[in-house]
This record gives sequence, C-alpha cells and structure tokens, in this order.
Amino acid sequence: MTYFEDLRVGMRTEVGSHTFRADEIKAFAREFDPQSFHLDEEAAARSHFGALCASGWHTAAVCLRHIVLARQRQEAELRRRGEAVARTGPSPGLRDLVWPRPVYVGDTIALRAVASRPDVGLRVARHSGINQRGELVYSVLSSTFIERRVRNPDGVQA
Amino acid sequence: MTYFEDLRVGMRTEVGSHTFRADEIKAFAREFDPQSFHLDEEAAARSHFGALCASGWHTAAVCLRHIVLARQRQEAELRRRGEAVARTGPSPGLRDLVWPRPVYVGDTIALRAVASRPDVGLRVARHSGINQRGELVYSVLSSTFIERRVRNPDGVQA
Repeated sequence: MTYFEDLRVGMRTEVGSHTFRADEIKAFAREFDPQSFHLDEEAAARSHFGALCASGWHTAAVCLRHIVLARQRQEAELRRRGEAVARTGPSPGLRDLVWPRPVYVGDTIALRAVASRPDVGLRVARHSGINQRGELVYSVLSSTFIERRVRNPDGVQA
Repeated sequence: MTYFEDLRVGMRTEVGSHTFRADEIKAFAREFDPQSFHLDEEAAARSHFGALCASGWHTAAVCLRHIVLARQRQEAELRRRGEAVARTGPSPGLRDLVWPRPVYVGDTIALRAVASRPDVGLRVARHSGINQRGELVYSVLSSTFIERRVRNPDGVQA
C-alpha cells in the first residue's frame, strides 16, 4: 500500500475485471448461498431475477480478489523501485453495501476503487463493480487503516 | 419467510454454528482473499493477527449459508403445516459490516439473526457471529424486503 500521506481524495484505481461463468456462480452458491436463482437456470427464470445470477456475496468476493491482487501488484512495484510499503491494519468495517443490479451469467464486471475521505485518519474508498453496459452492480464503502510515514507526526519536535 | 406482519422487533433466530478448519480458510483465501495471513500459518504468525485466520468475507459467506439454510428449514416447516410462505425481494443492501475480532482455526462461531426494525417497511436484522468464548466476530445490519400478507393494506375498503 502507498502511505497514508500519499493518498488523495478522488484517487482512482481500476483493479481488473471478471466475467462470471455459470459454473462458478453455481459453485459459490452451493457452498455459501444455496438459493434456487443462483443454482438452477430454470428456477432462476421463474424468479424475480429472470435468469441465473451470481450471489451478491460472490460479486463481493470477486471484487475483494481483485482489490487484493491490485494491491499486491502495487506493492511489488514499490519494492522493485526500492520504496517502502505501508502496512495496513485489519478492516475497521464496511458501510453501505449494495447490489443495485443482478450480475448475470456472462456479465463482465469492471472493478474500481476511489479514495473518498483520506482526511479522517482512515482511507475510505468506494469499491464498485460496473457491468459491460456501464451499470453499477456492486458498491461498498470500505475503510482501511494505513500506516503513516511518520510514526508520531504530532510528537515533540523541539 | 414468515410474512412481514408476523415479525416482531427483537425476534431472534439462532441459525447454526460453524467451526473453521485451516483447509477451508486457505481454500477461500486462495480464491478470493489471497493475503498471507489467510494462506500460511508461518506468515500469519508474523502478522498483526498472530495466527492463521479466516477472511472476513469467508465469515460473512458462512453466515450467509446458515441464514439461507435456516430460512429454507423454516419455509419447509411452514409448507408442511400448509401455511403460506412469504416471498422476499433482492437485498436492498447492508450497512455497518464489521469484524470485531479475527476468526482463528478451530474457532466455532454461532450465528444468529435479530430483527431490529420491522416497522419501517423492511425487515432489518442484525446478523452476528459469536465465537466459543462469547466474543462477537462478525456483525452486519441486513435489510430484506418481505411480502406483506395483504397486497394493498392501505387500499380503499368501503
């Protein structure tokens, strides 16, 4: 992770994209969200979704994967350049988790993170997933504690 | 699901419990959250967690599984008694998702749902996971649209 002081409001990271296949949608659903519209095409066709779609938590997990991999790529690049990598703490929580639209089989979701409030002591970023039609399908406000460059910036200096 | 009108504030459901094994923690992490403290005992020992622990999203997914299965058991029971089953809509979102403590290998998490505000048109319930020491490890405010018994309760009657 870049250091807390290096973050700027509005800083935007495109973290990758993922096309959802029917087999992975069903595999996730069998293990964690065994509702018929995530497991079976015919049952899904009769449901309010109208077609097989991914569990919202599957969408969240895929977004997580891309966020983690993007951070690991960024950290590898920092190390390659001989720069320090900021440590992060455990997540203090997430707010405002919504799935405005279903993610159907074959939908390709582009995932991004936009830093929104680095001034409050946490990096707060909106993570979102946008489908191939430009429609929002996943959004959450994610908070991360990030190490500051200076351990004690308000410490006695003189 | 029981109908919206049958919900009461404070209604509490114990939905099951789950003991997290190292192999499933690593399998989830490999697929969705490939951070070293979810993948490798030695790296985890050196991290701020101190030992291998589950991705918070794995905890969330396991809670989801139990919530879904508990609802399916409840609906099967309603059908067995010849009672109607209320339909639910897609999730309008979740708020206030936190993981106050890590879930370590061997931790057994009891999962519950407590209805908190059925008066606002949605069922809002706090889903939570409590470890074998009685400590909260997972908590989220989950909203669900639930069918009312009467389609148009405010409709013209006379």
